[in-house]
Amino acid sequence: MSEVRTVEWVNGRVRMIDQTKLPDRLVYVRLNNYRQVSNAIKRMVVRGAPAIGVAAGMGMALAAKANRQRSRTRTLKELEVAAEALRRSRPTARNLFWAVDRILTRARSTPEGEDVAAAVIDEARKMAEEDVQANLNLGRFGADLISDGDQILTHCNTGTLATVSYGTALAPIRTAVRQGKKVSVIATETRPRLQGAKLTTYELLSDKIPVTLIVDGAVGYVMRKGMVQKAIVGADRITTRYVANKVGTYLIALAAQANNIPFYVAAPSSTFDIQHDDTEIKIEERDPEEITHVNRRRVPPRGVAVYNPAFDLTPVELVRGFITEKGLFTPGSLSSMATRAQLGQA
Amino acid sequence: MSEVRTVEWVNGRVRMIDQTKLPDRLVYVRLNNYRQVSNAIKRMVVRGAPAIGVAAGMGMALAAKANRQRSRTRTLKELEVAAEALRRSRPTARNLFWAVDRILTRARSTPEGEDVAAAVIDEARKMAEEDVQANLNLGRFGADLISDGDQILTHCNTGTLATVSYGTALAPIRTAVRQGKKVSVIATETRPRLQGAKLTTYELLSDKIPVTLIVDGAVGYVMRKGMVQKAIVGADRITTRYVANKVGTYLIALAAQANNIPFYVAAPSSTFDIQHDDTEIKIEERDPEEITHVNRRRVPPRGVAVYNPAFDLTPVELVRGFITEKGLFTPGSLSSMATRAQLGQA
Repeated sequence: MSEVRTVEWVNGRVRMIDQTKLPDRLVYVRLNNYRQVSNAIKRMVVRGAPAIGVAAGMGMALAAKANRQRSRTRTLKELEVAAEALRRSRPTARNLFWAVDRILTRARSTPEGEDVAAAVIDEARKMAEEDVQANLNLGRFGADLISDGDQILTHCNTGTLATVSYGTALAPIRTAVRQGKKVSVIATETRPRLQGAKLTTYELLSDKIPVTLIVDGAVGYVMRKGMVQKAIVGADRITTRYVANKVGTYLIALAAQANNIPFYVAAPSSTFDIQHDDTEIKIEERDPEEITHVNRRRVPPRGVAVYNPAFDLTPVELVRGFITEKGLFTPGSLSSMATRAQLGQA
Repeated sequence: MSEVRTVEWVNGRVRMIDQTKLPDRLVYVRLNNYRQVSNAIKRMVVRGAPAIGVAAGMGMALAAKANRQRSRTRTLKELEVAAEALRRSRPTARNLFWAVDRILTRARSTPEGEDVAAAVIDEARKMAEEDVQANLNLGRFGADLISDGDQILTHCNTGTLATVSYGTALAPIRTAVRQGKKVSVIATETRPRLQGAKLTTYELLSDKIPVTLIVDGAVGYVMRKGMVQKAIVGADRITTRYVANKVGTYLIALAAQANNIPFYVAAPSSTFDIQHDDTEIKIEERDPEEITHVNRRRVPPRGVAVYNPAFDLTPVELVRGFITEKGLFTPGSLSSMATRAQLGQA
């Protein structure tokens, strides 16, 4: 799976894997404008914070390309419009906002008379390459934490499909396996969208890494039974106080703490949002149908109220360490000037 | 729902609601012999520890009835055979073993010359009546713990459908509502069998008690958000050290502890197994298809390994109190002679 590209700029268009079709079919879609990209993010055709970030960056590139014939001022205005639409697609993933802002900065800093579109496209493609490189690097730092024989619990999908390639929480596992360590994975199915059951198992089976699927509720039991040596998850946004990640993460962190199992969060620096100590995180609430309908068939009786937060908040104190492309960081260090500087948080 | 009987002895047969058909259709099935009962328990046509107990008792009654024309010795032997089959149907629920043993004791103590079948049928029907009475009583004890305005989180189904009628963890909620308290419920969907989504919502909607459905992974988030004032769950077996209950319960207990939310276990005395302090609990592992197939459609790719424990173990220290038909008990009291005597554990 690690040669696959989840999101790519191909011949002036954005090509991405339609993740709603997996694991039944591997289908690529080609998108021609930022509205299609925004819609693909909303519908979770592309998901995973780093993949969303790069997709948004490429959405901006499509917007710049569409305005190539226009004046610089007009192009910059159109980019602001596209940025707003992309920012509205999903509210929690830090990487999306980070990517859109980075593209806007690059566009604005393009010297008068130069091709803004070319600069923006270049920046978006660079972001994609950087993502792959960051994941390889964080994979190396994370692999040092993994011992031969470890069984690692993970949640949702944090592999190639959640990034451009290689993954966040799956990267240390992949690297450890490449180093010759015997590693197996317990994957939670991850209701309601079942990314663990559909995507993580798909990736690991194709990489021949042993994987066992459990329901989300079984996390505590497998930990208590001694079946788990480490837990590694990804993140959608990390502040100095909380990790926002797929709903269910907080329970995994609590169960890990109760059973003395190290709990790690693997994420590139673009997921961190640690400039301030009082940053609030907006948790996206998604369509009740994600819960009430499975395979298009209704499960509960009509009329039941549903609450469907897509993410939850884990206090950073429950995190043993943050695995990034710049190395490992402790929860306590996130407020320090040194860490902020290292993670590029001005 | 509380006028409905989940399991009943009707005209010499066992009538039960086929819970695999809910919430789409309310269908009753009639069973003629203990093998059908054992099969219904295995297939979860009837589920919920107290309901399983009474069903097993009635399965024994069917076995006694079938041997009415035989000698006393032969009837007792046939009852032993039926008992073994019923005990093998599901290993975790204490009530099943308790019920089968109680029927065997009654059969053996029937005086020579008297109708063993009549005695056994009488005992099974008495067990059903006692279950309803126990639930009403534990409902009263539990309702005292519920304040006006409480939102209560519960797991799996512990209502009428998990018992003969009225329920265990839902009983205090029903009683509190009857007392005029404003109470609402957060129900976890309870993967893999979705008893929360299918059965608990069905019962509460029909009783007009406000209920909100969440995925199992959202338990920690709703607690941290202040949406939950109490958590009440049922139990399949309670020892002096652990509560065995539907997988996911342990995570609820951990999240409740982390957020200072009282966590209660509601169960009749027949669920307790506290004669010894070192009792081990066998946790049933069920068919992987319960996880891999939803609405008969496969979710994960073929070839993935699955681990499907039906229950988990919650250390009793995480339990604020046990709500029983004999009153409230603290975790610390379970080893005491007084509690053992009160709960009928010789």
